[in-house]
Amino acid sequence: MSIVKIVEVGPRDGLQNESKIIPTDLKTNFINNLYKAGLENIEVTSFVSPKAVPQMSDADKVCSNIDLSKFNASVLIPNLKGIKLSKRHDFNEICVFTTTSEAFANKNTKCSLPESYQRIKEIFSHIENNQKVRGYLSTVFGCPYEGDISIDKVLYGVEKLFAMGCYEVALGDTTGIGSPDKVLKILEKIKEHFEISKIAMHFHDTHGMGLLNVHSSYEQGVRVFDSSAGGLGGCPYAKGASGNLATEDLCHYLNERNIKTSIDLKKLVQASKEIFEFLGKSSMSKVNQYIVRSHEL
Amino acid sequence: MSIVKIVEVGPRDGLQNESKIIPTDLKTNFINNLYKAGLENIEVTSFVSPKAVPQMSDADKVCSNIDLSKFNASVLIPNLKGIKLSKRHDFNEICVFTTTSEAFANKNTKCSLPESYQRIKEIFSHIENNQKVRGYLSTVFGCPYEGDISIDKVLYGVEKLFAMGCYEVALGDTTGIGSPDKVLKILEKIKEHFEISKIAMHFHDTHGMGLLNVHSSYEQGVRVFDSSAGGLGGCPYAKGASGNLATEDLCHYLNERNIKTSIDLKKLVQASKEIFEFLGKSSMSKVNQYIVRSHEL
Repeated sequence: MSIVKIVEVGPRDGLQNESKIIPTDLKTNFINNLYKAGLENIEVTSFVSPKAVPQMSDADKVCSNIDLSKFNASVLIPNLKGIKLSKRHDFNEICVFTTTSEAFANKNTKCSLPESYQRIKEIFSHIENNQKVRGYLSTVFGCPYEGDISIDKVLYGVEKLFAMGCYEVALGDTTGIGSPDKVLKILEKIKEHFEISKIAMHFHDTHGMGLLNVHSSYEQGVRVFDSSAGGLGGCPYAKGASGNLATEDLCHYLNERNIKTSIDLKKLVQASKEIFEFLGKSSMSKVNQYIVRSHEL
Repeated sequence: MSIVKIVEVGPRDGLQNESKIIPTDLKTNFINNLYKAGLENIEVTSFVSPKAVPQMSDADKVCSNIDLSKFNASVLIPNLKGIKLSKRHDFNEICVFTTTSEAFANKNTKCSLPESYQRIKEIFSHIENNQKVRGYLSTVFGCPYEGDISIDKVLYGVEKLFAMGCYEVALGDTTGIGSPDKVLKILEKIKEHFEISKIAMHFHDTHGMGLLNVHSSYEQGVRVFDSSAGGLGGCPYAKGASGNLATEDLCHYLNERNIKTSIDLKKLVQASKEIFEFLGKSSMSKVNQYIVRSHEL
């Protein structure tokens, strides 16, 4: 078992930020190959409104075409309708989300913050006994609409998610504005109130600070990190868009620190290859590119 | 005055690793625009054999076309012939180089390590009274031919360069294999023997660890960093090639830490734009790309 838990969010957070609709079979190949590359925790899709996120409209098909029992498969659920739709499939883990910011809740989920927690409560009422629930708290380092976010709002969100029954809370740097000093400031406070082993960090690499933020989080005791194969997500041509921290970069960092992972980096690079080719772009991960060059993949 | 000194090596270390020969006027525009973006220390070219590095064959023209008195202009000099050629121009600073590795010296400079130091000695005999000399020690984190490099070889190199008269020694992570733990291990030893204020770090971003290594070095007291505008250097299509740490990424990191620099990031991005267009590729710097998207440059 790895000391560090990596949660692969490429098939969901990565792909949902790609505007070009990817065929279902490419998505299922991607997920299967991620599993074969050694990823043990994969968020496979989201049962979200197809109008809100067209890329996830084949969620049901994706889940039918993969063997969810082979790995710790999780799915993002936004509301009551979503949890009901997910019932056709056997998920170990359900992911719910909210934010620190009233403005972000309004813009991104078309509801107020209290309504956002109400939705999570409704989802919880349909959770099976054998299912774990993971909570995402987004915009912890700041909100694109509200700006700075007070530490109290972060602590309130984490507290609520744990109180409702989440076993783990992922702190999301939604717009990639985190920095080592901000990480330190937030995690010092988090550690005063919560067990650090139950906290995950979810970084976007907008300004190339993802790995540095992982490092600072690791130094504070965090051992769970979200990342996306190849740094999928966002689009180099879309204003302000940004991808998740690349799983390759995260793994290379861990390898360099002699922190064991179960991941075969070459297979990981190959797992996202078909997707990048379909999207007509290259991975922005330096490690991905290095492996492509070195092995002529 | 900035707390951190940034040495812009794009026009030399960046460009010399680009195989497509760039017209002289693009190089001089690049250097002038780097200066206008606020860079105070720029290594403008190298008086090296045109056979060895065809990209630097216009060194004399480049130096004639820019006003070297406007900023701290430095030049890389490999040997006696190089220092003689440089005399036509008025440089504040001369850069010399050697390595920790006998194999690297043989392969890259076609001489033994003792001969490498002999060349530096010859260069020093032609240094003007008003000129400072900066020493590069490459492969401090390991050699592509010899593998691991003992800390004693690093200390020996730094000692020799200071003893010969260098005012500053830049430790080069030539192949981008540095990591926070390696940085810590080397700098702890360096600090036992030398003033940390005289040590610069020169990282390549092969595996996306450049900024993380800067952070670890900064924590150890280093305040001088080399970087290249846009992360120029290396080629995404050449096996194992890699660029320097991007100056944009370095500046963004420093800004995020409230460490003052004199650099205008938007102007910095514009400075390398023409070069990247000529090379037919995009900067691999996330900060560069973010600024291009945000300002539609």
